[in-house]
Amino acid sequence: MMLQKIVIIGANAAGVEAASAVRKKDRTAEITLVTREKTVGYSRCGLPFVISGVIPQLKELIVYPPAYFQMLKLNLRTQTTASVINTKEKTVTIQTPRGVNETIAYDKLIIATGAEPFMPPIKGREKLGILSLRSIEDGEKIDAAVKAGAKSAIIMGAGLIGLELGAALIKRGLQVTVVEMLPQILPQLLDVDMAKLVQDHLKQKDMKILLNKTVEEILGEDKVSAIKASGEILTADMYISAFGVRANTKLAVDSDIPLGETHAIKTNAYMETEVKDVYAVGDCAETTHIITHRPICPQLGTVAVRQGKVAGMNVGGANSQFTGVLVSAITRLFDIEIGTTGISEAVAVKNNIQTVVGIISSKTKADYYPSAKSIKVKLIVEKESERIIGAQIVGGEEVTQRINALSFAIQKQMTVRELAKADTAYAPPVCETWEPMVLAAEMVLMKLR
Amino acid sequence: MMLQKIVIIGANAAGVEAASAVRKKDRTAEITLVTREKTVGYSRCGLPFVISGVIPQLKELIVYPPAYFQMLKLNLRTQTTASVINTKEKTVTIQTPRGVNETIAYDKLIIATGAEPFMPPIKGREKLGILSLRSIEDGEKIDAAVKAGAKSAIIMGAGLIGLELGAALIKRGLQVTVVEMLPQILPQLLDVDMAKLVQDHLKQKDMKILLNKTVEEILGEDKVSAIKASGEILTADMYISAFGVRANTKLAVDSDIPLGETHAIKTNAYMETEVKDVYAVGDCAETTHIITHRPICPQLGTVAVRQGKVAGMNVGGANSQFTGVLVSAITRLFDIEIGTTGISEAVAVKNNIQTVVGIISSKTKADYYPSAKSIKVKLIVEKESERIIGAQIVGGEEVTQRINALSFAIQKQMTVRELAKADTAYAPPVCETWEPMVLAAEMVLMKLR
Repeated sequence: MMLQKIVIIGANAAGVEAASAVRKKDRTAEITLVTREKTVGYSRCGLPFVISGVIPQLKELIVYPPAYFQMLKLNLRTQTTASVINTKEKTVTIQTPRGVNETIAYDKLIIATGAEPFMPPIKGREKLGILSLRSIEDGEKIDAAVKAGAKSAIIMGAGLIGLELGAALIKRGLQVTVVEMLPQILPQLLDVDMAKLVQDHLKQKDMKILLNKTVEEILGEDKVSAIKASGEILTADMYISAFGVRANTKLAVDSDIPLGETHAIKTNAYMETEVKDVYAVGDCAETTHIITHRPICPQLGTVAVRQGKVAGMNVGGANSQFTGVLVSAITRLFDIEIGTTGISEAVAVKNNIQTVVGIISSKTKADYYPSAKSIKVKLIVEKESERIIGAQIVGGEEVTQRINALSFAIQKQMTVRELAKADTAYAPPVCETWEPMVLAAEMVLMKLR
Repeated sequence: MMLQKIVIIGANAAGVEAASAVRKKDRTAEITLVTREKTVGYSRCGLPFVISGVIPQLKELIVYPPAYFQMLKLNLRTQTTASVINTKEKTVTIQTPRGVNETIAYDKLIIATGAEPFMPPIKGREKLGILSLRSIEDGEKIDAAVKAGAKSAIIMGAGLIGLELGAALIKRGLQVTVVEMLPQILPQLLDVDMAKLVQDHLKQKDMKILLNKTVEEILGEDKVSAIKASGEILTADMYISAFGVRANTKLAVDSDIPLGETHAIKTNAYMETEVKDVYAVGDCAETTHIITHRPICPQLGTVAVRQGKVAGMNVGGANSQFTGVLVSAITRLFDIEIGTTGISEAVAVKNNIQTVVGIISSKTKADYYPSAKSIKVKLIVEKESERIIGAQIVGGEEVTQRINALSFAIQKQMTVRELAKADTAYAPPVCETWEPMVLAAEMVLMKLR
């Protein structure tokens, strides 16, 4: 029997997970991972926490060390660029670190090219010195700038990465100003009411947040020396672009592998692209939202590993389906955790879904138990079906697993009436008698009755 | 219109919740709560944490102060014993604090008489000086004994209360020995494998645990001076009975209100007893297990308030059903949290349910994130339907809401395949990329495939 040749382009969350899944199913396949990066198998999501100093060194983020690739007999080719995919001949042309072109054949190809920071077409955006945070090297640059004495930073964009990085720099002693075009922070995660809670906390921690401010121009000679935002000139020692990321699709486009309407690579439930034997996973791949049934490219680490696993299993001979996303996401900023799953009120409006919303403020332990922290739960319920379709939680602790609980509830089409009667656990040191999620359901019911 | 007369016997979790629910539905009803206790509306579950010193004073456990009863216009009669229920005349005979008998009429009666510590028929059990922990007064006695200089304690029973109290006394500096008849601790909550984990932790914290030891005799003159357990004589400065609690059903039995097979008061989904216009809720009431469909009396605070609410709403004119229990329970002992929901492997065997089990050890944060703690998740899956029917978790943090998440999953009949593909949230400071619950599902699938 011929050995299966598998090529995977990309070697972080999605790519390595895919490789591991192939190997579990197929002990003999030749599996080659090709990546432009020097360091592979690391956790991007950990980068802000190295900048903050909580994690001592960037290299600690490497969750798949070289030994892992050896153990699974994965042929890892770092600092190697995949330049052409020939989907008819089933080959990938790569450029080795020494600049030599080489053509490797595949039976199955998995594209895990990820995403990269996006800079809108702002005047002067070509100027040097604008930092971003996507790779270990980016992290090193930001860390070096802080060590070189930077005292202040302007962050363009109040999304997850912008705020996590802002919090990290404040912990390092910098004055941080975040500039956001929209009228709220975390627009992808939260509705404006919940975002306001987070904003108030960040303000208490001395993060300066300017909303409704559009970055119009990057000023300076060759190098950035200021930015102009809605007419105002802002200066700092560091300038960081955190506008968001865009799927890395150039290779796919050049190879006539179709994109979807989100401009990420179109995939089906098996993580196959529209080209035979070519899969796409992770931040470069489009998928489907469980609630809206619309295409989406959520660019989250959990989604990347889940997709990588499905593609890898299928390449290895299984028949596994990816079941879509709820875009469950979580972070910790200073003393609060912020989580979301399903859709927001705002997204519901855009999709013409009529909702009833319940919000409750409660505590994370029995009210009389020392160090009980505040927690606020917002539930979004579809009016007609009375099903839970979204949740947002901001609290001092224990937010993550509540998001997971509500994610399970949404995936299993739990109604708000069922949640209001759910069996939950209780002990004074770890939660309240009436679970806040249940109380939020009760708030919705008061409007439904 | 005649005002509805509601009598509630018992004024803690279940009773007060019931009274509140009636009042929300019926602004004019005359609501009378009758209780033998002096202090009412307090959290029993908080008692061990006052003993440990975490909560400074017993009175802080009062979650419903007198003002609450006034606000809701509840007629509260403390230190008052309900001695006879006449279900034909629809009256309750009570004895006031002054010893006067009084008969009060009801249109609807709610029995929330709770439970009380159970002492098996051990020789010498009538001897004085054996303590237990159920009421504020019990807490005061234990606290007084510690303050009087007790240096050691023997706790009979390794259930939740026994171990919580044992941990509390160790924190107060006492040497604690727990004597348990069964070959494991926490037999109601955990299978033997997970119980062993907890036992190891307790041992590290200097709790001495003697398993397979039956208390055969209480020794001493009038007052306990030693116990004999499986032939061994054990002595300490304090002796605590923590064999468990039994439903307080004397009043019901005397009034011909039928009990169920668990010897608690039989109820239907509306929390009605078999006698018209008489309801029973909380630790004295029998209910139905969601998985086994068998009668059960779980005696948990969450169940008490949920049942109280259903009964109260129905008395107030609603048509609310109690949906059964999964016996979700949680506690914290020293540095670990212990949680359970659904049924254990042992209960599955008893009910002839064939299961497949998955166990995984993981971390509560990204592996590289400082202070990540260990967590172990055990999933119990019904083989035929592949549905999750039980879970047990022991970990350093973030156990409670995972129990709630799995409780939701069980209630919504999630299969282990669905859990293995569930959308979960991830960020390095709060969880791992692959959620441990999902990994446990994967372990089950490896056995099912």
